[in-house]
Amino acid sequence: MVVKVYGPHCASTKRVLVCLLEKEVEFEVVPVDLTKGEHKDPEFLKLQPFGVVPVIQDGDYTLYESRAIMRFYADKYRSQGIELLGRTAEERGVVEQWLEVEAHNFHPPAYDLAVHVLFAPLFGITPDPKLIEESEAKLLKVLDVYEERLSKSKYLGGDFFSLADISHLPFLDYIVNKMNKGYLIKERKHVSGWWDDISSRPSWKKIIQLYPPPV
Amino acid sequence: MVVKVYGPHCASTKRVLVCLLEKEVEFEVVPVDLTKGEHKDPEFLKLQPFGVVPVIQDGDYTLYESRAIMRFYADKYRSQGIELLGRTAEERGVVEQWLEVEAHNFHPPAYDLAVHVLFAPLFGITPDPKLIEESEAKLLKVLDVYEERLSKSKYLGGDFFSLADISHLPFLDYIVNKMNKGYLIKERKHVSGWWDDISSRPSWKKIIQLYPPPV
Repeated sequence: MVVKVYGPHCASTKRVLVCLLEKEVEFEVVPVDLTKGEHKDPEFLKLQPFGVVPVIQDGDYTLYESRAIMRFYADKYRSQGIELLGRTAEERGVVEQWLEVEAHNFHPPAYDLAVHVLFAPLFGITPDPKLIEESEAKLLKVLDVYEERLSKSKYLGGDFFSLADISHLPFLDYIVNKMNKGYLIKERKHVSGWWDDISSRPSWKKIIQLYPPPV
Repeated sequence: MVVKVYGPHCASTKRVLVCLLEKEVEFEVVPVDLTKGEHKDPEFLKLQPFGVVPVIQDGDYTLYESRAIMRFYADKYRSQGIELLGRTAEERGVVEQWLEVEAHNFHPPAYDLAVHVLFAPLFGITPDPKLIEESEAKLLKVLDVYEERLSKSKYLGGDFFSLADISHLPFLDYIVNKMNKGYLIKERKHVSGWWDDISSRPSWKKIIQLYPPPV
């Protein structure tokens, strides 16, 4: 059974795609054009009632929310590909903590920056300079905590690459390679080393090449 | 080893406390007075560098982020108390999906409502009527999706009570019992029945009685 993944060009979907590659799970992609509002089509809303990507279909099993889908495949295929959750409850707890930090501390300012710096023209939004400034200030503080963490730990979740690292890839890529804000990373020695490490993984390089962002 | 839980009177911490009761894990609480800024004290920031509650200490293991802590105890004590994650990878995937929906769709407007309707005086914030109106409008749409889901499933994650349900308790309690906005729930038959069910669990009733909110 090949997993169908909706919306491969979108940032959140890339979390799922990298996870599937790392877990050696076969997939095919179904494009969803957000600029045409295809994520609000009645047929799409039957799969994802909030009208956002990604969604996966695995036989008759449908699941949405990128971090939930990653956890599902990392759990279902524990003994296949690399271990992405942690080997003990304690390791898994720390991975979960940093997945939550990504979702609640890193993602909101990174997302606001991406929307206002990168995607405003595409979606007819007027960029808000105050929000851009505030988002960057928030992100700086978050990355200071990451610098401290990564001075003591090779990866966010511990000494192993995990879902917590994967979850950061798409928006860090926007920051470094699309928004010309690589200095946010480069100014922090351990964050910079970590980014170089995780962004040079074959899984990420393949996904970013196959499904480039729409800007 | 008794688990130390910091900040029991805060909403997010109650997710953790209910989970610990349901998993029959002993705990003691450590008050953190947010109105005095104790969550920004240097000693507290050593435990939680972002300066928010909850944090737990379990021997020399420290963990933060309420949803991560819940997952940790539900995972570590699989065979103790009730099963809160799901019995199969597919069940766990659906629980994770609704935990993520809580975090990304339900929580932001519920949190903004709580801050501006309930906690503004306590924290010296000027309530923003436009934000209150917009948050309620967002919440209505989210609860419409919940109504559809709960018309087909007894609980959010499936036919069993799970972390996905626990995660909603503290802010639903604010909405119904503190903000006089119970109509948001009552107007939706299945959401209303679900709320009556989950909020009458002995674990929740005990936690809300022991650690009432600061307003």
